Amino acid sequence: MFTLQKTSSKTKARLGKLTTDHGTIETPIFMPVGTLGTVKAVNQDDLSEKIKAQIILGNTYHLYLRPGNKIIQDAGGLHKFIGWDKPILTDSGGYQIFSLAEIRNLKEKGATFQSHIDGSKHLFTPENVVGTQRILGSDILMILDECPPYPAEFDYVKNSMELTHRWAKRGREEFLKTDPLYGHKQFQFGIVQGGVHKDLRKESSEYMASLDFEGLAIGGLSVGEPTDLMYEISDFNTDYLPENKPRYLMGVGTPANLLQNVAFGIDMFDCVMPTRNARNGMIFTRNGKINVRNAKWKHHHKPLDPDFPSELCQRYNMSYIHHLIRSNEILGLQLTSKHNLTFYLWLMERIREQIKNDTYHEWYSGMMQTVDQKI
Amino acid sequence: MFTLQKTSSKTKARLGKLTTDHGTIETPIFMPVGTLGTVKAVNQDDLSEKIKAQIILGNTYHLYLRPGNKIIQDAGGLHKFIGWDKPILTDSGGYQIFSLAEIRNLKEKGATFQSHIDGSKHLFTPENVVGTQRILGSDILMILDECPPYPAEFDYVKNSMELTHRWAKRGREEFLKTDPLYGHKQFQFGIVQGGVHKDLRKESSEYMASLDFEGLAIGGLSVGEPTDLMYEISDFNTDYLPENKPRYLMGVGTPANLLQNVAFGIDMFDCVMPTRNARNGMIFTRNGKINVRNAKWKHHHKPLDPDFPSELCQRYNMSYIHHLIRSNEILGLQLTSKHNLTFYLWLMERIREQIKNDTYHEWYSGMMQTVDQKI
Repeated sequence: MFTLQKTSSKTKARLGKLTTDHGTIETPIFMPVGTLGTVKAVNQDDLSEKIKAQIILGNTYHLYLRPGNKIIQDAGGLHKFIGWDKPILTDSGGYQIFSLAEIRNLKEKGATFQSHIDGSKHLFTPENVVGTQRILGSDILMILDECPPYPAEFDYVKNSMELTHRWAKRGREEFLKTDPLYGHKQFQFGIVQGGVHKDLRKESSEYMASLDFEGLAIGGLSVGEPTDLMYEISDFNTDYLPENKPRYLMGVGTPANLLQNVAFGIDMFDCVMPTRNARNGMIFTRNGKINVRNAKWKHHHKPLDPDFPSELCQRYNMSYIHHLIRSNEILGLQLTSKHNLTFYLWLMERIREQIKNDTYHEWYSGMMQTVDQKI
Repeated sequence: MFTLQKTSSKTKARLGKLTTDHGTIETPIFMPVGTLGTVKAVNQDDLSEKIKAQIILGNTYHLYLRPGNKIIQDAGGLHKFIGWDKPILTDSGGYQIFSLAEIRNLKEKGATFQSHIDGSKHLFTPENVVGTQRILGSDILMILDECPPYPAEFDYVKNSMELTHRWAKRGREEFLKTDPLYGHKQFQFGIVQGGVHKDLRKESSEYMASLDFEGLAIGGLSVGEPTDLMYEISDFNTDYLPENKPRYLMGVGTPANLLQNVAFGIDMFDCVMPTRNARNGMIFTRNGKINVRNAKWKHHHKPLDPDFPSELCQRYNMSYIHHLIRSNEILGLQLTSKHNLTFYLWLMERIREQIKNDTYHEWYSGMMQTVDQKI
């Protein structure tokens, strides 16, 4: 499934190829988040052709509640339901149970929770989230895990990690004894937990590696800890992950976070930031971050950057974007969302180029400062 | 400005061409409404290339309040501000003062009102709405009028009409003694009032015709009166409008309303219905109206009509559109809005074909029934 093509000589950055039945993904890659089967405010053709997304993410928790497994199975899986024929990764729903469901109860068997929509009761187990993701038909499916908050007591994090390990074993067994429903291959990724504790991270990495998943994710970061600590743990953690498997850092992050974590050897990222912040008027660019709601853009009667390949940058005056966002017009959300994702995917392409040329170590820290500044 | 090319032999339907410095408009035409300088949920390229809009409408009241005259003037007018180089018609704001502003006061001089956004006080006069529309730089600008509600007392409607006449004269004088700001020609349309009273409609038509506007609108219909009465008055009213001037029926309407009013000799329409109803899940099609929120679409795992040239009809399953709209996803609004406008413009093209072939009289009433049925 994964071919490691090159490793940067002076950082841990890696260039790879991830092959699925819905197409090949060049890594490092960013995966736009399509929670309910739609990357918010973007249509599938733009996602593919303009943003150049190679893989998108769907949320099992959300899709299980709406439209539900039956609808998606009847449609022939998530790809057919939403009209997207490139790869899809689905999470397991674990994170959403803890962040969205108002009442939940964790037992050895699994997690019971009440829907945030209608209060109905549900149980997710390591086995049935495999079943749901078989129905979704995602190319990559994730195991059920518990993601502890930050900060959390060591004992809580350790017990939680051990539960995640037992769930991982059950989830892997379920995966290995079941088959895909729609004729295309599916892969399963394990999730390393352990909070910000290096000994737990090492233990969790080794345990997850032992289950021989097709890829491994680092979970439980970017949950409120300081950025430096996230970097320290990510850097440490990748040293304990197998070289020959793709590595996915879940829920990260800013453009600077991506640049830094690529240097630590991460291959895959997802985050709602480019789309969520877009809807609040934050525009990420190769020259820094912009809050288009700011008065300084009110009189900027020209496009932002005619040389950058996004509709927002080339086609409209910034004063108009300012007007649209301040007036809560849908077109504003469309343009900023599409732009931010275009920028994220553009950035990943630059990252891959730099690794290919073995210049990543010279380039990335300067780029981190540039993209992180406010303009 | 207007060339009448053909009149249907057995109805009053007309085929014409309206020439502006931003392009030629084939009539009968429907004008998508771009209230705040954006047709909600649709980008300008799709509006032009996919929906094939030939002219859009902007609302003076809304644009005057946000972003305000200075921003638009600095940008070089509304076309440049929003990135749209085809024709634009702007209303005068009269209708919005009466429907949106919470406190307003009508005097001979003009209408004072408080902004529905921040409560600030403003005065619109027949003269200054010409000034604002000079700043907007619309190709067609409308006079300030008072639009009485339905039902209303005869005396109220008569007095209101007479005020509109006095305002029309002042507005026309202001228009004739001022110049466009951006080097392209602007035209001014008068607005016939008179409620549902034929004698007043006749009087108002004759008065407006005497002021020699470049076109004439029928205002004050589609404000709550029964459809049959709207048809009766529209049919009556067009008999008193000059043959050689374009006729615009303001704020109308459903696809059936368009078909019927074209038969009465109307050339131009605008309405928020295709976009507003789209956002509530109503889809207009050549086979009838659909409420995509209905459960019957939940399991419809195929596109609606692969032969109809809209992204919604060709690219996505109806079950997915149902899911998007029920989940309040922005993509749902984008697809339904774009579809409905594509359908409205498609319908106008069919209408023009039928008039051209002089088959309109045989075709339109069957088509009215078809597009009006619920499916």
